[in-house]
Amino acid sequence: MYVAILAGGVGTRLWPRSREAMPKQFSDVIGTGRTMIQATVDRLDGLVELSDIYVITGRGYRALVLEQLPGLPPENVIVEPDGRNTGPAIGLACAHLYRRDPNGIIALLHADHIIQDPVAYRAVLQQAALAAQGDYLTVLGITPTSPHTGYGYIQRTGEPLPASGTIPVYAVDSFLEKPDQATAESFLASGSYYWNAGNFICRVDRMLGEFERQLPDLHAGLMAIGDSLGTDRADEVLESVWQTLAPISIDHGVMEHAQRVAVIPLQAGWNDVGSWDALEEVLPVDDEGNVLVQGETLLVDSHGLIVSGGKRLIALVGVEDLVVVDSGDALLIGHKKQIQKIKAVVEQLRAEERFDLL
Amino acid sequence: MYVAILAGGVGTRLWPRSREAMPKQFSDVIGTGRTMIQATVDRLDGLVELSDIYVITGRGYRALVLEQLPGLPPENVIVEPDGRNTGPAIGLACAHLYRRDPNGIIALLHADHIIQDPVAYRAVLQQAALAAQGDYLTVLGITPTSPHTGYGYIQRTGEPLPASGTIPVYAVDSFLEKPDQATAESFLASGSYYWNAGNFICRVDRMLGEFERQLPDLHAGLMAIGDSLGTDRADEVLESVWQTLAPISIDHGVMEHAQRVAVIPLQAGWNDVGSWDALEEVLPVDDEGNVLVQGETLLVDSHGLIVSGGKRLIALVGVEDLVVVDSGDALLIGHKKQIQKIKAVVEQLRAEERFDLL
Repeated sequence: MYVAILAGGVGTRLWPRSREAMPKQFSDVIGTGRTMIQATVDRLDGLVELSDIYVITGRGYRALVLEQLPGLPPENVIVEPDGRNTGPAIGLACAHLYRRDPNGIIALLHADHIIQDPVAYRAVLQQAALAAQGDYLTVLGITPTSPHTGYGYIQRTGEPLPASGTIPVYAVDSFLEKPDQATAESFLASGSYYWNAGNFICRVDRMLGEFERQLPDLHAGLMAIGDSLGTDRADEVLESVWQTLAPISIDHGVMEHAQRVAVIPLQAGWNDVGSWDALEEVLPVDDEGNVLVQGETLLVDSHGLIVSGGKRLIALVGVEDLVVVDSGDALLIGHKKQIQKIKAVVEQLRAEERFDLL
Repeated sequence: MYVAILAGGVGTRLWPRSREAMPKQFSDVIGTGRTMIQATVDRLDGLVELSDIYVITGRGYRALVLEQLPGLPPENVIVEPDGRNTGPAIGLACAHLYRRDPNGIIALLHADHIIQDPVAYRAVLQQAALAAQGDYLTVLGITPTSPHTGYGYIQRTGEPLPASGTIPVYAVDSFLEKPDQATAESFLASGSYYWNAGNFICRVDRMLGEFERQLPDLHAGLMAIGDSLGTDRADEVLESVWQTLAPISIDHGVMEHAQRVAVIPLQAGWNDVGSWDALEEVLPVDDEGNVLVQGETLLVDSHGLIVSGGKRLIALVGVEDLVVVDSGDALLIGHKKQIQKIKAVVEQLRAEERFDLL
C-alpha cells in the first residue's frame, strides 16, 4: 500500500497556532511533541514504508515537509503549483503513482487529522486495502459521535459486503451534503450514516478510471502531467497544465457518482480539530473541567478552560469557558462557545495586511 | 515646602506588572509613558523644586529612583534598612529634614497614587501648607465617591476653620478604622467623612514633637539617627537603631491622638489603584465598555475588559468582564469581579519559590 498525504491546507481556524507560514498540519496542536503531519506518518508505522509515502503540498511547505519528515525521499513531496481543491490534488498524486505502480493501492489521507487509536486505525486501513483490491473505491466512514452539521455524510446500504472480514465493509448508497440539525439527528439515530472525512483507499488505476469517465478534461491534463514526469519538461508542463484544471472537490467530481464505492466504519477516535474547542474531545479534561494542552499555567477557581500556552506563565483567576492560546507573537483569548468568531480576527488582520500575524 | 515621597511598597495586587523587583510605583500602570513615581513628581511641577523632594524607599530601589528621577540629588534618596511601616518611615524623613530646616513644611506623599486633576491637587497642597504654618498637622481627606470598605475614614468637625481660604479646612474629629458596608454607606451619606489616604502636610518640628509626646522611644531613635547624619557613623547608627524601632503605622502611632489635626477635602480624581479593576475609575471606558490601557489589541464582540498588553497582539473573541495583563514573562487573565484572588497566585508562586515571577 502507498499513502498520499494531503498537506496543502492553510486553515486559520486554529489561529494563532496555525498560520499561513505554519499551518496546523505542521504544528504540535495537541502538545504531544509531534506535529500533526509527523503523527500522521507515525501511525502508519509497520504498515507503510516511508519510501512509499507521498506528501502533496504547496510549494512554500516543501522544505517544512522534508524537515519534519526526515527520511522521506525528496521526490516523494509532490508540489501543487497552487491550491485547486481536492480533485486535482488527488489526481496529481495518482498521476505520480501511476508511473510507479498503476495497479498499486493508494490510501489518500489528510495531514491534519487526529487518530486516538492507531491500532484500530491500521486494522481498518488493511481491511480497506483488501476492499480496494476487490475493485472498490473505499472511503473511511467516521462513526458519528454527535449530530454534527459541519460534515458531509455517507449513507451505507444495509448489509456488509460478502467479502468483508472481521471489519465490515458496506456498499455506499449515497454521499450527502452537510445536513441541517434535524437531519443530522436522524442520521445519528439511524446508525447507517457516517461522516465523510475525505479519506479514500483504492487502486490507482481505478481512481484514474473514474476521473477519465467523469472528468475527461481533468484526466487528460493529469495524463499530460504524468507523461512529462521524469523529463526536463516536467515543471513546465505541470505549471501550464495545472492552471487549466477545474478546481473541483473529489466528492463532487468523482465519489458521488463513482461505481463500486464502499465504506468502512472507522471508530478510532478520529478528529480533524476544526476549532480550538475540539481539543476537549481529544485530550483529557481534568477534575476542574480544564484542558491544559501545553505551557505553564497557574489556575485559581477557574473551570472549563482550554489553554495552549507558550514560553510564559499563564495565570487564570476566576474565569470559565475560555480558550487561551499563546503563540509567542500573538495571544488569543476567546469564549469557548464563540470561538468560531476567530474568523473575524483573521479577516481583520488580513484587511490590515498584518502578514506577520497571518 | 518640602516633599517626602514614600516609595517603599512592594505591593503585588497589580501582579504581574508590579513585582518585587519593580513595584507598581516604578511601573507605568496606566500607560501614560510615565511611571507612578515620575507622575508623582511631575504633578508637583511649579510648586516644589526637585532639590526639595526626598524619596524614602528600600535599599534595592535606590538605583531605580535615581534612574527614574534624573535631577533628584542622590542624597535626597533616604534608604530604609527594611520596611517597618509608615511611622518609622515618616519619622526618618522628618529626622533628615529637621537638620536642614526644622521649621520647614513637609508634605508626606505616596509614590503610587494617581491624581487626575493636578491643578486642583496643587491648590489643595498650597492650602494645606498654609494650615501647617498655622501649627496644624494636616491630612488630605479624599472626598469619597463610593461606600468603600477598604480605607480608613476621617471625620471632620462641622464648620471650616476660620483661617480657611477658598478651600475649606476642617478640624478633625476622629480617625476611624475601615468600616463595614452599612457604616461606610452612612459615612458617604453624611458628607462629613473622608478617605484617609495617608497624605500629611505639617511643620517638621510639629510632627517630631508628636513623636516625642506619643512615641518617646521611637523619637529618641530618630534623634540618634538624625544626630549621626553627615558623620561617618551615619550608616552604622541607622542600621543598629533602625532594628529597635517599633513597626507602627503613622495613623495608630501619631495621627489618631495628635493635637491640632486638620483635614482638607481633596477632589482631584485621587486613586491608589489598589487592584486592576480600579483602572476603570481612572482611564476612559470606550463605547464597548472596555479599558484598553496599552499594547495592541483586536476585539471581536468583547465587552467590559481591562487590557494592559505588552509587545504581542492580544485578540479577544466573545469575552466579557476580564482583566488581561501581559508583562512579557507572565500573563494574567482574571475575571474582573474576582481579581482580588490574584493574591492566591502570588502566594502560590512564593510557595514554589518562583522568584523570577514574584
